[in-house]
Amino acid sequence: MTAPALARPQLRIRRVNLDTGRENVAVISRRSKALRPELFRGFSRVELTCNSRTLLATLLLTDDDTLVGPDELGLSEPAFRRFAEPAGSHATVTPAMPPDSLDAVRAKIKGHTLSAAEIDAIVDDLAHYRYSDMEIAAFLISSASFMTSGELLALTHAMARAGTQIKWDKPIVVDKHCIGGIPGNRTSMIVVPIVAAHGLTIPKTSSRAITSPAGTADTMEVLARVDLGVGEMKEVVNACNGCLVWGGHVNLSPADDILISVERPLSIDTREQMVASIMSKKLAAGSTHLLVDLPVGPAAKLTNATEAMRLRKLFEFVGDHLKMSVEVISTDGRQPIGSGIGPVLEAQDVMAVQARDTAAPADLREKSLRLAAHLLEYDPHLRGGAGYMRARELLDSGAALRQMERIIDAQGPSTCRTDLGPLTADIPAPRDGVVEAIDCLRLNRLARTAGAPIDKGAGIKVFKRIGDRVEKGEPLYRIYAFDQPEYDLAIAITNAGTGYAIDGRRALAGEAKA
Amino acid sequence: MTAPALARPQLRIRRVNLDTGRENVAVISRRSKALRPELFRGFSRVELTCNSRTLLATLLLTDDDTLVGPDELGLSEPAFRRFAEPAGSHATVTPAMPPDSLDAVRAKIKGHTLSAAEIDAIVDDLAHYRYSDMEIAAFLISSASFMTSGELLALTHAMARAGTQIKWDKPIVVDKHCIGGIPGNRTSMIVVPIVAAHGLTIPKTSSRAITSPAGTADTMEVLARVDLGVGEMKEVVNACNGCLVWGGHVNLSPADDILISVERPLSIDTREQMVASIMSKKLAAGSTHLLVDLPVGPAAKLTNATEAMRLRKLFEFVGDHLKMSVEVISTDGRQPIGSGIGPVLEAQDVMAVQARDTAAPADLREKSLRLAAHLLEYDPHLRGGAGYMRARELLDSGAALRQMERIIDAQGPSTCRTDLGPLTADIPAPRDGVVEAIDCLRLNRLARTAGAPIDKGAGIKVFKRIGDRVEKGEPLYRIYAFDQPEYDLAIAITNAGTGYAIDGRRALAGEAKA
Repeated sequence: MTAPALARPQLRIRRVNLDTGRENVAVISRRSKALRPELFRGFSRVELTCNSRTLLATLLLTDDDTLVGPDELGLSEPAFRRFAEPAGSHATVTPAMPPDSLDAVRAKIKGHTLSAAEIDAIVDDLAHYRYSDMEIAAFLISSASFMTSGELLALTHAMARAGTQIKWDKPIVVDKHCIGGIPGNRTSMIVVPIVAAHGLTIPKTSSRAITSPAGTADTMEVLARVDLGVGEMKEVVNACNGCLVWGGHVNLSPADDILISVERPLSIDTREQMVASIMSKKLAAGSTHLLVDLPVGPAAKLTNATEAMRLRKLFEFVGDHLKMSVEVISTDGRQPIGSGIGPVLEAQDVMAVQARDTAAPADLREKSLRLAAHLLEYDPHLRGGAGYMRARELLDSGAALRQMERIIDAQGPSTCRTDLGPLTADIPAPRDGVVEAIDCLRLNRLARTAGAPIDKGAGIKVFKRIGDRVEKGEPLYRIYAFDQPEYDLAIAITNAGTGYAIDGRRALAGEAKA
Repeated sequence: MTAPALARPQLRIRRVNLDTGRENVAVISRRSKALRPELFRGFSRVELTCNSRTLLATLLLTDDDTLVGPDELGLSEPAFRRFAEPAGSHATVTPAMPPDSLDAVRAKIKGHTLSAAEIDAIVDDLAHYRYSDMEIAAFLISSASFMTSGELLALTHAMARAGTQIKWDKPIVVDKHCIGGIPGNRTSMIVVPIVAAHGLTIPKTSSRAITSPAGTADTMEVLARVDLGVGEMKEVVNACNGCLVWGGHVNLSPADDILISVERPLSIDTREQMVASIMSKKLAAGSTHLLVDLPVGPAAKLTNATEAMRLRKLFEFVGDHLKMSVEVISTDGRQPIGSGIGPVLEAQDVMAVQARDTAAPADLREKSLRLAAHLLEYDPHLRGGAGYMRARELLDSGAALRQMERIIDAQGPSTCRTDLGPLTADIPAPRDGVVEAIDCLRLNRLARTAGAPIDKGAGIKVFKRIGDRVEKGEPLYRIYAFDQPEYDLAIAITNAGTGYAIDGRRALAGEAKA
């Protein structure tokens, strides 16, 4: 029941300077003669056709001819880019039929189990921007309540196939992934140079912060360029065995990026979707061996060992079926790892560890060595159990630092400011005692309020850790900010609570430093 | 963790000529100093504040100062209207926290049952445009898979309370509702004048077509004005005992309108949501007695008696708890009711029945009399079983026609064109035989393709019904259209299939007119 193309009057494509993010948006005049605008409403879906190219978009109407005239078709920036037809080309607009794969989504809502072919079709439509926000939400929520292991595998496979798939000419390609949530914790930037210095291939892609004060890509950007394309990334890895780049330009699992963009505002977070998301990217990145770090702590994503075990089993199940060697470890997620929270402060920690600076945070060094040890054990030439010693040798000899410098050179120079925020405040302990707990969520929000990651040099430097004895008035951490309102807001947050639990009685009883 | 208002630079409100339908949209410059646009992305949600008023909106970014400058806040038409602050006023923009009631939606996704208080909060946020499309979809889909009877009642109550609630100074206020799907079927426009002529109060609100070729409001609009507000509607009912107005201006159950606007593009249609939708509107409209018409047929919304019974029980359950007297009847939904499909053609049928025209469609007359009889039986003064006779008396005496004319006068004159489309085609039977089935969905789509309801005089006039014997070449129905491309497209659809099943063998065996 599609209209013959000739029957539809043509509109001239015009670029409209509106950034509509993931959504394709088309703007037409309410007086447009090319369609019957009464048939459409604002935010209805339309199909644009030009030559043999089509694009689904969300429609907005206007009465303002200077914006879009009656014989024009306005395209928002993302729609214009994705449609890839020059301004002035002629296109037609018809009401969009929803993608066929929505039938499968509706079946899933009714409780049916989806076949691999149905999931393939959904992911293909997702990756090609054929789903509206509400359609994406429909798929996510229908899968959130229940997903079989078969569906999980099919989703992982389909998402991995939907974007760039990197092939490496190596039998072993290792990778690590942390599910996040812990402030600081920039182990990848120490693990990658150690593993690469040893000679294993470790092409690490990382994300930028969305709700946290820094992602590995934000912190690495303090030291080097991170927005490499696939070709550039491969060159760096061929030259240095490893890289530390932003995943955004590499386009691994674009369907997953789209799902995440809806998952996040809805705060829907299921184990299955997390595993499909991570594993699809690793599969597309060509990893053969993966180490997954699951921090467990009261303010971490996983709050107890049972949750961590269930997630571990899901990773192992999918890994086995994808023929990827997956190892999952639980780590201490009760407090920040390293002293810095925010890109510049974290980068300082990372480089201090690699430079064997005596003031370098010991916890960051230890955790990085432990993770690197696991990865090095994947090398068949290394004697079993020798991973940790080898990792420490590569770090302490300066080999890891030299490898890091090679990687930085290969990726190219950073263009970021690297100074710390000039507005600082030391937040004092409100009483004598021993630090019993640190609220990671609160410190993350505080560092973000202070300006991280937008201001690379904003954030928090942590002085006191769990088990430390403190005296009243002694600084717990220091805030760095550039912007006065943000600084004031951060101070206001600390006035309402430092995020530290200090138990004075235990200190008085002399039970500190347990 | 809200910023003090003073810390945020102010933006000047500017109206942007974009119709964004239900969604509030704000446009800011990517160079705006009032916020950190890097913190925002296209299609993220923001909270606008001016004086003590707030509004949640979806954000678009622009680099075009002529559209929205760096110190301006652009508001799309619906957002400007709902924010109700004059252009040039100063407002602040902050990232929006999702509505608190989303926690309950997330709990529902995880399989929890919601309390009445949680459902109240969700409906309140929905009705105040605080949910984005994807959040609305999240609620709908989480409820689509499972809803307890307690949740259904709470949702109905909450939706009824969220909008206009009409009180009538009458012990009995009757109403009828058809769940739709059958072409033609304009019984309300005959039932209302009969019941009103008898003296019962019947304040009928109807919908416009969204996916069908006509709603009762579209057809009534051929005869009278239908976009009355609550005050005007009450005046008409006080003067005439009844009315036939569009529900859109009366604002009964606005939360339901918002849910429907997402349900429809997703084609999610659950019994519970249908019942909550209908019953919330009847409750808000002040109805005490309701007759629900459930057409059953192979291309109707209900395809068998079992489905109809389950839906009937849900209506009865909710009616009992709302203290509303609800009667539910199943009717023949195998074919169109009346001969016209499309506003003008349907209005002609309705007036022909009331004028006792010998060519008036007998099926429309009979069904209307039957429904009116049920409603009249609600009158305690009428002897039990006398409803049908009384309805026929009111129709055949011309009392119903005079009542209809009074209602039309009271609502005001129509401003619509009432001519039929000049492009017509009679669609011939492809063979001799007996009509065995008519595909209602196909006829609906055909009438809509021909231009209904936008072109009031476009549509289909049906000549042959189930059981009729036809000869090859004899017209089954006539298409009316105004627009050549739409006409061509309609013809193309009939070439692919008339929508009529004609069984030649049965006709040859002389078994016709069963």
